Amino acid sequence: MLTTLPTFSDIKRAHQRISEYIIHTPVITSKNIDEIAGCNLHFKCENFQKVGAFKMRGAANAIFSYRPEERENGFACHSSGNHGQAVSLASKLAGSKAHIIMPTNSSSVKVAAVKSYGAEVVLCEPNDSSRVQTCANVVEETGATLVHPFDDYNIISGQATACKELLEEVDNLDAVITPVGGGGLAAGTCLAAHYMEPNLDVYVGEPTEVDDTYNSLKAGKIIPNTTTNTIADGLKTTIGEKNFKILQEHAKEAFTVTEQEIIDGMKLIWERLKIVIEPSSAVAFASVLKNRKVFEGKNVGVIITGGNVDLTKLPF
Amino acid sequence: MLTTLPTFSDIKRAHQRISEYIIHTPVITSKNIDEIAGCNLHFKCENFQKVGAFKMRGAANAIFSYRPEERENGFACHSSGNHGQAVSLASKLAGSKAHIIMPTNSSSVKVAAVKSYGAEVVLCEPNDSSRVQTCANVVEETGATLVHPFDDYNIISGQATACKELLEEVDNLDAVITPVGGGGLAAGTCLAAHYMEPNLDVYVGEPTEVDDTYNSLKAGKIIPNTTTNTIADGLKTTIGEKNFKILQEHAKEAFTVTEQEIIDGMKLIWERLKIVIEPSSAVAFASVLKNRKVFEGKNVGVIITGGNVDLTKLPF
Repeated sequence: MLTTLPTFSDIKRAHQRISEYIIHTPVITSKNIDEIAGCNLHFKCENFQKVGAFKMRGAANAIFSYRPEERENGFACHSSGNHGQAVSLASKLAGSKAHIIMPTNSSSVKVAAVKSYGAEVVLCEPNDSSRVQTCANVVEETGATLVHPFDDYNIISGQATACKELLEEVDNLDAVITPVGGGGLAAGTCLAAHYMEPNLDVYVGEPTEVDDTYNSLKAGKIIPNTTTNTIADGLKTTIGEKNFKILQEHAKEAFTVTEQEIIDGMKLIWERLKIVIEPSSAVAFASVLKNRKVFEGKNVGVIITGGNVDLTKLPF
Repeated sequence: MLTTLPTFSDIKRAHQRISEYIIHTPVITSKNIDEIAGCNLHFKCENFQKVGAFKMRGAANAIFSYRPEERENGFACHSSGNHGQAVSLASKLAGSKAHIIMPTNSSSVKVAAVKSYGAEVVLCEPNDSSRVQTCANVVEETGATLVHPFDDYNIISGQATACKELLEEVDNLDAVITPVGGGGLAAGTCLAAHYMEPNLDVYVGEPTEVDDTYNSLKAGKIIPNTTTNTIADGLKTTIGEKNFKILQEHAKEAFTVTEQEIIDGMKLIWERLKIVIEPSSAVAFASVLKNRKVFEGKNVGVIITGGNVDLTKLPF
C-alpha cells in the first residue's frame, strides 16, 4: 500500500496490476466539435470503462494492492455513485466481499447496480455524518478494509492510468483537462502528465456551484464547499488533502462553469460525438468552450469521466 | 454506374472509392448486453459515421461513381433525413452542388444541418407527390443528377461496405441483422455476407407499424405500407424493387417489433453501451431480444444505423 506520493514507477505498476480488470478505453475525435471549440480535442472515453466510469481504475488498484490474505474480510465504502459500483465489482473480481453504505435516498437503479455485483448494501441516513458513522460501524463489525474514494495514493495512482493511456496514444498534446470533485482523477492526471510530459499544461474544471478547488487554489488552503447545488453529481465533494497538494504543485489553472454551461456542453457531446456522458463529464469540455483563448489552436486531451445517467431525468 | 446486380468486385471497388470520405467505424461489444440477450453481439457503430449514419457510404459511392465532368450540374434528392445530409456532404466533397428537397414540416435542425454542408434546400409540401414532383422540377431546371436513397445498385454497393468491414474485423459470426426501410442497407448486407461468408444468416428487423418487408417476403411480391406510424423515422419507406429481390434471395427471415420494444431496446443500448443511437437503429437489437431462441449462444453482428436524434424529444 502506498503511503507516499506516487512515483512514475508506482503508476506503471498500478497500470500493470489493473490491466486485466479494466477496459483500455478509446480516444475519439470530431472535426465538427473541433470547429466549434477552436482547438483539437482528444476525448478519453472513460464512459466506456467498466461500471461506466474511471472510478474502476482506482478501486481496482486499491483492492488488488492488498495481498489475497489481506482481502479476506472484504472491503467497504460509502458512496451513492460510481465509486460504490467500482468497489463492488473490483471486490468481486478479487474474490472478496464488498459492503457499500448508501443513503436511503439513493436511486433504486444505483442500489440494484451495486447489488448486481454481489455487494451487500447497508442503508444510512442521507447525510455525511450518518454515512461516515455507518461505514465505521460496518468496518468495525466485519473487519472490512475501507476504500477511500479519492484521498488515497493507491486511488490516485489508479486514476492516473487514464491520462497515462491518453499520453501513450496521442502525441503532441499541449494540455489535458479533467473535472475535479474529490480530486483523485485530477491529481492522478497531474502526476501522469508531470512524469510523462512535463511541459503539458493540466487544467481542471468544476461547477461554479461547487467551486472549492478554484477557491482553495486561490487561497492556498482548502476552502470547503458551502453549496453543492449542481447537476454534476460526481463533483459535489470537497477536494481531498493529498489531491489538493498535488494540484497546488502541478495544475496550471482551475476553471468554473455554470449549470447551463454544463448542460449545453453535455448536449453538444451527445449530439456530435454520439456518446452518452454524465453531467460531471461535461464540465471539462464546457471549461474549454468557455476559455477559448486559453486553448485556441492547441491539442487538448479531455477526460470524459463517466456515462452513468438516468435517461428518464435528462436536463434537456 | 452500376446497372446490374453488384458483384463482390463492385463492392470492393465501392469500398476503395469511398474510403477516404467515410469513417471506418468501430465494432463494440458488451458482456453486460450479451448476458441480457443470451448471445454474443458485435455492434457495428454507424452512428459514428460521417453525417451520423450509414447513408454516407451509399451517397458517397453513388456520387463519386460519376466522372468529374458528369458532376458539374450537381446532385439532387428528396429527403427529410439522413440521406439528404449524406448527399449534401458527399456533393461538397466531390466539388458539386447539391439540391435537397425537404418537406416544409422538416425540423429546423435538419434543414440547418443540410445547409451547413453548403447544399441548397428546396422546400415542398409534406407529401410524397409534392416531394417527387418538386424534385423532378429541380432536376429539369438544373440538370442535376437524382440520387435515389435506396433502390439503386450504387447505393446498395456503398451500404454493403458496412457489413464488409464488420466481416473483415470479426471472425466466426453466425448471423448479421440490420433494420430495413427502403432496403439499401439490408440488401447491401445480404450481398456482402453472400460473397464473403455464404453460410452467414442475414436477418432484417422492422417496426410492426411499417411491416411491408415482412409482408412482402411472405407474399412473394411487394406489399406497400398502409401505416407509417413509428418512432423509427428512418424506416417508414416501402422497400425498393431491387432491394426486395436481393432480400428474397438472401435474407433468412424478417422480424417485426412493436414501438415499445423499439424504445426499450434503444434505452438499453444508451444505458449499457453508452452510445447515442436513433430509434431506427434499435429495431435490429430489439428483434434479437424478441427472438431469443433464434440467436441463443450465437455470434451476431448488429448494424447500428445512425445516431441522429432530437435530444429534446426522447421517448423515455
